[in-house]
Amino acid sequence: MEKEILIFGHKNPDTDSICSGLVKEKLSKKLGMENVKAVRLGKVNKETKYVLDYLNLEEPGLVEELEEGQEVIMVDHNEFNQSVAGIEKAKILEVIDHHRIANFETSEPLSYTARPYGCTSTILLEEYKTRGIEISKEEAILMASSIMSDTLLLKSPTTTEYDKKALEELEKIAGVDIKQYGLEMLKAGTDLNDFTAEELISLDAKSLDKNGTKFIIAQVNTVSIPDVLKRQEELENAIKKEVESKGLELFVLAITDILNSNSEVIALGNRIDAVEKGFGKKLEGNRTFLEGVVSRKKQLLPNIDKNI
Amino acid sequence: MEKEILIFGHKNPDTDSICSGLVKEKLSKKLGMENVKAVRLGKVNKETKYVLDYLNLEEPGLVEELEEGQEVIMVDHNEFNQSVAGIEKAKILEVIDHHRIANFETSEPLSYTARPYGCTSTILLEEYKTRGIEISKEEAILMASSIMSDTLLLKSPTTTEYDKKALEELEKIAGVDIKQYGLEMLKAGTDLNDFTAEELISLDAKSLDKNGTKFIIAQVNTVSIPDVLKRQEELENAIKKEVESKGLELFVLAITDILNSNSEVIALGNRIDAVEKGFGKKLEGNRTFLEGVVSRKKQLLPNIDKNI
Repeated sequence: MEKEILIFGHKNPDTDSICSGLVKEKLSKKLGMENVKAVRLGKVNKETKYVLDYLNLEEPGLVEELEEGQEVIMVDHNEFNQSVAGIEKAKILEVIDHHRIANFETSEPLSYTARPYGCTSTILLEEYKTRGIEISKEEAILMASSIMSDTLLLKSPTTTEYDKKALEELEKIAGVDIKQYGLEMLKAGTDLNDFTAEELISLDAKSLDKNGTKFIIAQVNTVSIPDVLKRQEELENAIKKEVESKGLELFVLAITDILNSNSEVIALGNRIDAVEKGFGKKLEGNRTFLEGVVSRKKQLLPNIDKNI
Repeated sequence: MEKEILIFGHKNPDTDSICSGLVKEKLSKKLGMENVKAVRLGKVNKETKYVLDYLNLEEPGLVEELEEGQEVIMVDHNEFNQSVAGIEKAKILEVIDHHRIANFETSEPLSYTARPYGCTSTILLEEYKTRGIEISKEEAILMASSIMSDTLLLKSPTTTEYDKKALEELEKIAGVDIKQYGLEMLKAGTDLNDFTAEELISLDAKSLDKNGTKFIIAQVNTVSIPDVLKRQEELENAIKKEVESKGLELFVLAITDILNSNSEVIALGNRIDAVEKGFGKKLEGNRTFLEGVVSRKKQLLPNIDKNI
């Protein structure tokens, strides 16, 4: 049998990487390319698992390294350092992506379709349409899942008009209330129940040091701040341990509502004044609500840092 | 006025680079992008000049360096070392190309359409069709010119089925005998009349040295070997001067018929035996016909070199 052409998204795969890979496999087969197989470069996250379970699909197989000359199709990425080991020696037949191009090169001409859209699946939908290929309900749900994941239900600043129109079209084919489905999908992805309080405060924690003042700003994403706040006492205990063991002056945990673009922060330590000054708000019960704040890099860190 | 977006092909522009640039400008304007302008990165060659004269079009303006942040669309190339000075600091909005991808990177997402076809214009034709944009007679002739130039009238081994189908479609719109026109265009490109014999034998000459035996293999392309052979005496005199002044053991001038994929070689010097042995043919009147030989790198050099 002819060797299979592997299709994959980036390492630490998100919903777009997995679903666009599966869709590209289906589209390729419909176009007569039989020997293609979608695979994954890492663990499927909870959000993506929700999509696969909903559609009763199995996870693609895991690939950790390519053999020399392996034929591949890359989706949702192009930079070799975000791809599989051995990608440099693979034969890249095609790339479908919506990121900048860098750390990428081939020795032969190839097919490369990049568009500055919010999602790879929005590009794939265009391919279906220009080739006149019918879109199944399953394919529509896979593509819609990718779009809603990458654009946080079309609310992220990365959303383009193309993504909006694509989702509209896909909803009609999918025949489901796509916003309702998407909300459930995003919720599944922010399911923090499996994590201990210690895991939760360190999932995405950034350690900082300003002139010897050590502090941490951690962040968790959620679709329900109250759900996370049910565990406030447990989280505070974990934070206190961190403050003591690491000699921190401040620990900030931002619980970010990715749907409404707000955050509730829990802050503990000797320098909670930096948070209060930074946002002009008093903590009550060790926490406060920050309207419109979602970004650590652009909002949380600068405001806190300048008051440390 | 808003600053113009520049569209250009590679340095030392060929017909595809110039014509695909002009076509992309026209297509962009039809799609509502008004402030685009096709430019060139070097002198227009005789073949391309034939196309522009035929259509009564002016040469695009010359650009030698870009200012930082200049918005550009690249056609028929992507490697920065084949592009204009300052390309690294430009804002690349889009690339349409049929080459490998290398020495290329951006900091922002962009539109990139590469296909492994014989010509950039074949990709542009697909863009017209998928966007449902009407193709004018002028646009059809520009695209057909690019395809016939890059594929040597569909005879080059780089030709794909896509190029063949594209040329067929374009011929209908162009309303001209496209093969006849293409032949005239290629002939114009191989017009060697402006060159002195000395220029002609050094236009594309490779100096070689095997264990102290110095020799040169030069090549000129033509659509009529007899036309070039009219100047045989003049060419031989120029070659003899080169042999003497450079102390060569051999000078080979290959006059390559790009339409029929054959070459006539003129060879002079003490070691013409290397040519005769290499191809199993005797020189008559200092020349011989080599059927199917067109490539210096893959045919002429190895066969001669092993007999030096």
